[in-house]
Amino acid sequence: MYKSIDIYDDKPHEECGVFGIFDRELSAAAETYYGIFALQHRGQESAGITVSDGKVMETFRGMGLVTEVFRHLPEKDGHIGIGHVRYSTTGSSIPANVQPLQADSIDGSMALAHNGNLVNTKNLRRRLLLEGSTFQTSMDTEVIIKLLARSRRKTEEEKFIELMDEIHGAYAIVACTNDALYGCRDPFGYRPLVLGRTEKGWVLASETPALDAIDAKFVRDILPGEIVSIDDNGVRSTMYCPVENHRHGICSFEYIYFARPDSIMNGQGIYQARLNMGKKLWEETHFDGDVVMSVPDSGNVAALGYAQASGIPFVEGLLKNKYMGRTFIQPGQKQRERAVRMKLNPIRMNVEGKRIILVDDSIVRGTTSGIIINLLRNAGAKEIKLCISSPPVRYPCFFGIDTAERKQLIAAKYPTEEICKMIGADALHYLSQEGLAESISELKKTDMCFACFDGIYPEPVPNNGLGGMEEEE
Amino acid sequence: MYKSIDIYDDKPHEECGVFGIFDRELSAAAETYYGIFALQHRGQESAGITVSDGKVMETFRGMGLVTEVFRHLPEKDGHIGIGHVRYSTTGSSIPANVQPLQADSIDGSMALAHNGNLVNTKNLRRRLLLEGSTFQTSMDTEVIIKLLARSRRKTEEEKFIELMDEIHGAYAIVACTNDALYGCRDPFGYRPLVLGRTEKGWVLASETPALDAIDAKFVRDILPGEIVSIDDNGVRSTMYCPVENHRHGICSFEYIYFARPDSIMNGQGIYQARLNMGKKLWEETHFDGDVVMSVPDSGNVAALGYAQASGIPFVEGLLKNKYMGRTFIQPGQKQRERAVRMKLNPIRMNVEGKRIILVDDSIVRGTTSGIIINLLRNAGAKEIKLCISSPPVRYPCFFGIDTAERKQLIAAKYPTEEICKMIGADALHYLSQEGLAESISELKKTDMCFACFDGIYPEPVPNNGLGGMEEEE
Amino acid sequence: MYKSIDIYDDKPHEECGVFGIFDRELSAAAETYYGIFALQHRGQESAGITVSDGKVMETFRGMGLVTEVFRHLPEKDGHIGIGHVRYSTTGSSIPANVQPLQADSIDGSMALAHNGNLVNTKNLRRRLLLEGSTFQTSMDTEVIIKLLARSRRKTEEEKFIELMDEIHGAYAIVACTNDALYGCRDPFGYRPLVLGRTEKGWVLASETPALDAIDAKFVRDILPGEIVSIDDNGVRSTMYCPVENHRHGICSFEYIYFARPDSIMNGQGIYQARLNMGKKLWEETHFDGDVVMSVPDSGNVAALGYAQASGIPFVEGLLKNKYMGRTFIQPGQKQRERAVRMKLNPIRMNVEGKRIILVDDSIVRGTTSGIIINLLRNAGAKEIKLCISSPPVRYPCFFGIDTAERKQLIAAKYPTEEICKMIGADALHYLSQEGLAESISELKKTDMCFACFDGIYPEPVPNNGLGGMEEEE
Amino acid sequence: MYKSIDIYDDKPHEECGVFGIFDRELSAAAETYYGIFALQHRGQESAGITVSDGKVMETFRGMGLVTEVFRHLPEKDGHIGIGHVRYSTTGSSIPANVQPLQADSIDGSMALAHNGNLVNTKNLRRRLLLEGSTFQTSMDTEVIIKLLARSRRKTEEEKFIELMDEIHGAYAIVACTNDALYGCRDPFGYRPLVLGRTEKGWVLASETPALDAIDAKFVRDILPGEIVSIDDNGVRSTMYCPVENHRHGICSFEYIYFARPDSIMNGQGIYQARLNMGKKLWEETHFDGDVVMSVPDSGNVAALGYAQASGIPFVEGLLKNKYMGRTFIQPGQKQRERAVRMKLNPIRMNVEGKRIILVDDSIVRGTTSGIIINLLRNAGAKEIKLCISSPPVRYPCFFGIDTAERKQLIAAKYPTEEICKMIGADALHYLSQEGLAESISELKKTDMCFACFDGIYPEPVPNNGLGGMEEEE
Repeated sequence: MYKSIDIYDDKPHEECGVFGIFDRELSAAAETYYGIFALQHRGQESAGITVSDGKVMETFRGMGLVTEVFRHLPEKDGHIGIGHVRYSTTGSSIPANVQPLQADSIDGSMALAHNGNLVNTKNLRRRLLLEGSTFQTSMDTEVIIKLLARSRRKTEEEKFIELMDEIHGAYAIVACTNDALYGCRDPFGYRPLVLGRTEKGWVLASETPALDAIDAKFVRDILPGEIVSIDDNGVRSTMYCPVENHRHGICSFEYIYFARPDSIMNGQGIYQARLNMGKKLWEETHFDGDVVMSVPDSGNVAALGYAQASGIPFVEGLLKNKYMGRTFIQPGQKQRERAVRMKLNPIRMNVEGKRIILVDDSIVRGTTSGIIINLLRNAGAKEIKLCISSPPVRYPCFFGIDTAERKQLIAAKYPTEEICKMIGADALHYLSQEGLAESISELKKTDMCFACFDGIYPEPVPNNGLGGMEEEE
Repeated sequence: MYKSIDIYDDKPHEECGVFGIFDRELSAAAETYYGIFALQHRGQESAGITVSDGKVMETFRGMGLVTEVFRHLPEKDGHIGIGHVRYSTTGSSIPANVQPLQADSIDGSMALAHNGNLVNTKNLRRRLLLEGSTFQTSMDTEVIIKLLARSRRKTEEEKFIELMDEIHGAYAIVACTNDALYGCRDPFGYRPLVLGRTEKGWVLASETPALDAIDAKFVRDILPGEIVSIDDNGVRSTMYCPVENHRHGICSFEYIYFARPDSIMNGQGIYQARLNMGKKLWEETHFDGDVVMSVPDSGNVAALGYAQASGIPFVEGLLKNKYMGRTFIQPGQKQRERAVRMKLNPIRMNVEGKRIILVDDSIVRGTTSGIIINLLRNAGAKEIKLCISSPPVRYPCFFGIDTAERKQLIAAKYPTEEICKMIGADALHYLSQEGLAESISELKKTDMCFACFDGIYPEPVPNNGLGGMEEEE
Repeated sequence: MYKSIDIYDDKPHEECGVFGIFDRELSAAAETYYGIFALQHRGQESAGITVSDGKVMETFRGMGLVTEVFRHLPEKDGHIGIGHVRYSTTGSSIPANVQPLQADSIDGSMALAHNGNLVNTKNLRRRLLLEGSTFQTSMDTEVIIKLLARSRRKTEEEKFIELMDEIHGAYAIVACTNDALYGCRDPFGYRPLVLGRTEKGWVLASETPALDAIDAKFVRDILPGEIVSIDDNGVRSTMYCPVENHRHGICSFEYIYFARPDSIMNGQGIYQARLNMGKKLWEETHFDGDVVMSVPDSGNVAALGYAQASGIPFVEGLLKNKYMGRTFIQPGQKQRERAVRMKLNPIRMNVEGKRIILVDDSIVRGTTSGIIINLLRNAGAKEIKLCISSPPVRYPCFFGIDTAERKQLIAAKYPTEEICKMIGADALHYLSQEGLAESISELKKTDMCFACFDGIYPEPVPNNGLGGMEEEE
Repeated sequence: MYKSIDIYDDKPHEECGVFGIFDRELSAAAETYYGIFALQHRGQESAGITVSDGKVMETFRGMGLVTEVFRHLPEKDGHIGIGHVRYSTTGSSIPANVQPLQADSIDGSMALAHNGNLVNTKNLRRRLLLEGSTFQTSMDTEVIIKLLARSRRKTEEEKFIELMDEIHGAYAIVACTNDALYGCRDPFGYRPLVLGRTEKGWVLASETPALDAIDAKFVRDILPGEIVSIDDNGVRSTMYCPVENHRHGICSFEYIYFARPDSIMNGQGIYQARLNMGKKLWEETHFDGDVVMSVPDSGNVAALGYAQASGIPFVEGLLKNKYMGRTFIQPGQKQRERAVRMKLNPIRMNVEGKRIILVDDSIVRGTTSGIIINLLRNAGAKEIKLCISSPPVRYPCFFGIDTAERKQLIAAKYPTEEICKMIGADALHYLSQEGLAESISELKKTDMCFACFDGIYPEPVPNNGLGGMEEEE
């Protein structure tokens, strides 16, 4: 499945970032480019931009980073734009499975980009196939756009409501017609979506740094279950159901790992949450040590929190080579250890003879932690205590994160003490779920989804979550 | 509309070549590659190959020549393959509009490639849109695959018959499912399609040289109105209607210009037909001259025919630079004359002081003939009499050829004598329609389409053919 | 040595084409581009352009066709330009070995491009190395530019004369400094070089079609042993020795195969010479047959000559696929026959049941002729008599043509009757050397080089020509 | 001069990293690839690898990052390899000016790669030109390789000594012949070079992380003025002059900015030195503040040092987008502020209402600091005190660093208080030169070069350093 050893393959993968703009004063193509560039961390496999000038809509898409796909801006421009970056879960990573998806329906052209994962795709697809539909991709997005196209409702808002009656699972959608820009978030609010404003227009984005990037002001989060329509008349909000009438399931992993530390999501700053996680880790461990260090970059903030709470000095212990890119020639399939060494190099003075408290954000399959610990040992570490700023990942996600199948999750198979031995650490501590919930202090625990830790899914999932996603239905 | 001056832009453009193979002993990917390579003259804008191993189907497509799109064979292989080369008419030449088109329907995966042009696409598309369909391309092919997918008939053959009830116009189709290969030709037989056999399998192709290329034996032409199904049980033929019950409209321009001279199409060898055209031109003109020469390469065979019938020696008078490719830097938009000179250079000894009979296949807009005549005059030609091996092109084609809009056709606007003056020839003769019909001696005149010359379309066309295709109602 | 089967690998290879321009009214970059494009047939492996504006000189080079290397014109322009296309013999085909070669010497910048091959490179190189020189390429060009740079003579002309005292072998040179353009041809005149004039400037080129391409008028051939200097004062000619005092050795293979048919070289039109060869072939054979055909494209003109002289009709018997390019995927190393079939396809009506007189220009290793004959037999040919418009190639060339090592030359190893059997022809005739000499009617036999046929080299060659070029010295 | 706004254009640029290996058990091509990949921070414009198997030497070079130039390993392999990454100062950044430079001399093939800058190139080049040499590049490297080639000394070591008599300035050289690997460092030791050992062989590299990358053990620094020769007999050391007899001028900027924090250079760990600089900054300022933050990534370690010494918490205040690459589309030439915002985004919770102590490593032209301070102000910073971990850069470097011409250096033109106002900081402090020297605690102050701060160059420089490098006499 892997063409090359990816030392970050032991992290969960987010699948997408979305962006949209409606602004008659700006170049939708350029602003969308900058917007998705700021969301690049949410998906590096493909990128796409759709632009409409009110009459003609065109979509430009390709495999690769935003800067690789768009070596120059699309020739077409307009005042409406949507954009997408993608890491694929459902839908293999082939050119046709790239978003936004543009299609003509009886109402004209529409383009749609989607972050999340539906849990009832298979049934919806089958129903549409039975009705004579054809599918040219394997993306949920194609199901969604077909359902919208088939709706007999009069307005786009009503069509979205009809759509939301049908689709289950996680979705944060941006879409556009030649007239308007639309945003929509599922009633559980699994995936983030925010509204911003430019001087004369409006912006939708997965995360606030995309607003910062184009100098837009943050207005508010799109609410779980909300549909927003943006056109020359401004922003209209339509609720699928009153927000307080529906339970929420905001993804906790956004706070642990995915989101940029400079994001503010559902009112909660990511940096603050991660700092809190580090402090909670200290409270839960009180590990003795000479230095606190992180596995860069994702463990940095929690490590700073640990250091701050404990008084143990924070140091940089592992230097990351930032030039690796995706064309790095692997030193051989079996030499994962060497691949990791090319990416991370110990800074000897902070390691040699030291009792280290090492902070990382998560362990999924457990393929990398042991190698890093070994690297540190070879550089002279005296003791290595590993703190993970999330609970053990024991269940697969069905709402837009690619962790792995259940049978691949190391914490689904082994107790913590066993894992500690396997990776060669002197101690291993996972943040408690309680500690995690408290770290995300601006959100109520009951509004969040911790299913990958406790298996309690906000809504029914295929096979009760006990199989992999392959075995759906 | 033109990015660069194309000195061959004054020729009609064929839109496609199709190929299919079912053979358990061979590599479908490799044979399809060689097959479409042999059909490259039918379309140079994009190329695609679909392969199925009986379980999984994959499609590989791209913009450019076959050798550019496929720098290596697709990784996927199988025993069923279809392929396509394309010059676009309907459907702009953008990545999404590349064939084969692969789609999932309730019956499984299908891929389809299509040569020709439907005349009722707009209505069909509207009907499907009204039923809730979405279109991701602007190709007829997507209409066709959706109509097949919506059919409630039991067998693929019945579905094709139902399809043929609905679509009007020109189509030669190859399609495949995971089980079988299909071929289908419209009842008028506008576009060619032949059946061949490999040692253990079967092949479909637009022209016989694609069979030669993979060492397959020619079996027969697919009949107008015939559907063939090819699987492990061999070839089954189904007639949409008895072949003799339907009038035919085989495209005469295939014989004049499109097809390779080594093709044998509907029983008529192309080389022989063109040789005949040259002889008829002699019979109709009895021009006096020192040498017969052609505008290479497409006028070569008719020129040989003229020389043979007249006894006037055939010489090479214009040398073609074969390295031009598509990345040639144009010397400036206005310097069409220079662009032609880069491509064609007079061979002075055959031109200087000579009374030349120059043979070309057709004049469409009349933008190049004058330049070539001027080139020859500058090289010292004493007299230039131009013979065209087709009648004047006065009407647009609706069946798969991109000539031009009616208003761009020089012969729709001016009488022959006027055109002769405009291009600076000493004489100009177009082959008579009668002479053309007789040259294609193996076919009955009534089985052919001469609509671009006489405006008598085999079936109703938008606007009675008086507007351009843009104005399709 | 071959990465892929090249069906034209059985032809000799010319190594280069050169071009130069001095014109204050035109873009040297653009004109040089068009000039070397017209010389593309002389080398397809690399292309380069040097431009000077009188102060700054820049060189742009790359591997591939002119249109591939120069997808846009060089940013730098000026009034002096030189260009080069290359097929490599000495100097492997690696990026550093691409011409023009630009270097700074004590007198300023110079760039130089060279067509031909020196016979005493090894000694010259050793001498320069002993004097402390370093070489960054393996090209003769680097030797030449270093010898010019080391000269203590005052003028460039004197330096060229000093150079010509030292270097032996074949060379047609164009060079430029920031002040002037230079051309130089070896005293034997092995390789061609012509002078042309634009409205306000001057042009040098390997062949006249490069003049036609930029609308320059042919002035005259540069004489064997002549140096021309072109600057704002016009053209100055300097003779290394009086032209009549030196024997000449003009390459006969230029007339047989290399040059474009529209070239006029040393006063002899190529088309006329080839037509004569065909007539001579008829005189020498009087073969009986139904049709005359050629192996396209290089055998065309001689075949026309044969047909004209004999009265046997000329037909196109083999159709060449012109889309092959260099990225064609080979059907497997051993399937040379298939590779040939992809490139050439018989036109059945001209082959089946026919007694064929087939005309080709040369046989080098004999690897392709047998396959072509077999192709024609399979297409039903009744009899195939092969006429070659050159004598048997029995000796290697040391003056700029890559035939092959002596041991690879089929005619060096087998008598004609044996070769006829090996390739499966019904008869085989090589044009006599006398016939060849008479065909090139504008040149005296004693002014030409026929060494590859008779082994009589105009000047001493390594190993008396009995080994390959590898064994030089 | 700049094609796009580079927000890091306000940093000095190192020009090169070098690497060499001699090991009969390993792949020289692969190890050199990993070695230069680990040195990528020292130059991102081009990369090259030379490999020798003892008989044949081949060089592979190109423009771009190591991973871009080498998408696969060179086909050629061997037991000797050298490599180079380059940021260009002298020698424009064109393909010919890429290292290693390979050349044949009378003694055989040699390849050479060079980090540094000679101060007497112009004179050396002129002398060589007068002797008849030609130059194909504008690199110092070509001068060096020619001087070696011209030497009449018997051994390579003696040739290097002769070379070192002639060349003045900064150089750390790795070179190879078909027999041996060589390393050489100028007597001042401006640029670093270390020796490492693999299990069976030896390695040379600019920095120790290149040893770590290939699992080689650090042996020692190559001494200033030392030549090492490595072959099957092991390592031989030759001193140009006794190390203690020559004053040293080790570049202090390596410690401030260039070197990787995990490097150990001349016995001094970079991380430790930077931590010390941060502590010294605290000692020198005792700034009051709520948080310490850095301009990532180069200010990180000094900021940690400041935080540690002061007790003020270290926070991440600016998030860097790591996906920018070099194909980022600039938002317009004048929008430098926007370009910076795309690259750096404030983390609001650490900025808003905060009194910030911001740590950066250097200010060269002063084009970026003001923008960053403005970004922080807009994010709500209450007070911003900027600490620079180097003294003011007032003089250009002639020894291998591209700072800028003197007239572009902001600190050469304005006093610190003025600069503070210009960039809008509440306070600005540059580390004192004394403090810097003490931070690099393992080196004697007299062994270092601080010329860019105090203008005291270790050896004569063109124009006494008062002009730019352009005016070299």
